[in-house]
Amino acid sequence: MPTIIIEGPKADVETKRELVRRITNVVREIYKVHHVSVVIHENEPENVGVDGELLADIIARRKG
Amino acid sequence: MPTIIIEGPKADVETKRELVRRITNVVREIYKVHHVSVVIHENEPENVGVDGELLADIIARRKG
Amino acid sequence: MPTIIIEGPKADVETKRELVRRITNVVREIYKVHHVSVVIHENEPENVGVDGELLADIIARRKG
Amino acid sequence: MPTIIIEGPKADVETKRELVRRITNVVREIYKVHHVSVVIHENEPENVGVDGELLADIIARRKG
Amino acid sequence: MPTIIIEGPKADVETKRELVRRITNVVREIYKVHHVSVVIHENEPENVGVDGELLADIIARRKG
Amino acid sequence: MPTIIIEGPKADVETKRELVRRITNVVREIYKVHHVSVVIHENEPENVGVDGELLADIIARRKG
Repeated sequence: MPTIIIEGPKADVETKRELVRRITNVVREIYKVHHVSVVIHENEPENVGVDGELLADIIARRKG
Repeated sequence: MPTIIIEGPKADVETKRELVRRITNVVREIYKVHHVSVVIHENEPENVGVDGELLADIIARRKG
Repeated sequence: MPTIIIEGPKADVETKRELVRRITNVVREIYKVHHVSVVIHENEPENVGVDGELLADIIARRKG
Repeated sequence: MPTIIIEGPKADVETKRELVRRITNVVREIYKVHHVSVVIHENEPENVGVDGELLADIIARRKG
Repeated sequence: MPTIIIEGPKADVETKRELVRRITNVVREIYKVHHVSVVIHENEPENVGVDGELLADIIARRKG
Repeated sequence: MPTIIIEGPKADVETKRELVRRITNVVREIYKVHHVSVVIHENEPENVGVDGELLADIIARRKG
């Protein structure tokens, strides 16, 4: 039974509802299984590093 | 040194204390090791997908 | 940048190609991001437990 | 539905069968749930670091 | 593209900035890659088990 | 006790030895702890997706 762990940003419930629905459909179809688990980890931008920088700093710099 | 990552629901400290104690005992006995790490991720029901639905929606539907 | 970790079964390269393509599209669209990482862990049936049983044993029992 | 990820050593199928059975029982009892997923990652000693050393080197040193 | 998941304690933003910067440098140099993702999971002491005990209890006991 | 999970490429033992040594030093220094666990997952290029493509296909395309 595939388990999908999503390391993603904060999101509202409707976004997570759609994410679970659509990812489950893709996984079901491709792996030809019924039961699929999804776990969404919502990570603050200051807990994510992209190429050596905190995502929070990248976002702040873009907002200038 | 085995590390056990638990993707589970919210729980009170006594529950987590027992979870760590008993899972460590099982892992120690079976793998014949002493040092065991456990990390508990407490996931809100709206961050868990079960067969395409948010666990939060499944719980809400059952409460009718 | 979302990272998706897939704990799934063994699969051939074409299956994984499609899995990455379609999961990335869903994640891009929903999170409105461009960069998405996917890591596929291929787990043998004897390394997966479902409700207390090894998936390998469940499969063997179904084959009777 | 709790998912338990075990980062452990290589093990034979009987060991993994018992691990899944007993860990599932503990998780079921404590979280009061029925469905539990377990994923066992078997890691070679040269892929595990303990306090700065490869487990493979620690084992080799102990064998002297 | 390597992804590093850090299961660590609570930390302030400056600590996480340095962690991301220095871990990315090590990973870049050793794997000879440019793009590196880091995800920091900040775990409360009562969500971490060390050799069968909650880290929260170990800390409390040391404070006596 | 921090646990670092590295989702990276195949690597030889000397590379992994250095990775564990240097990452542990960074984590020890920054978190001011002694015990650090590292788990290295070696992922084949066909098990890694980067922006919708298999890393294996990106590598093949670059080799032309």
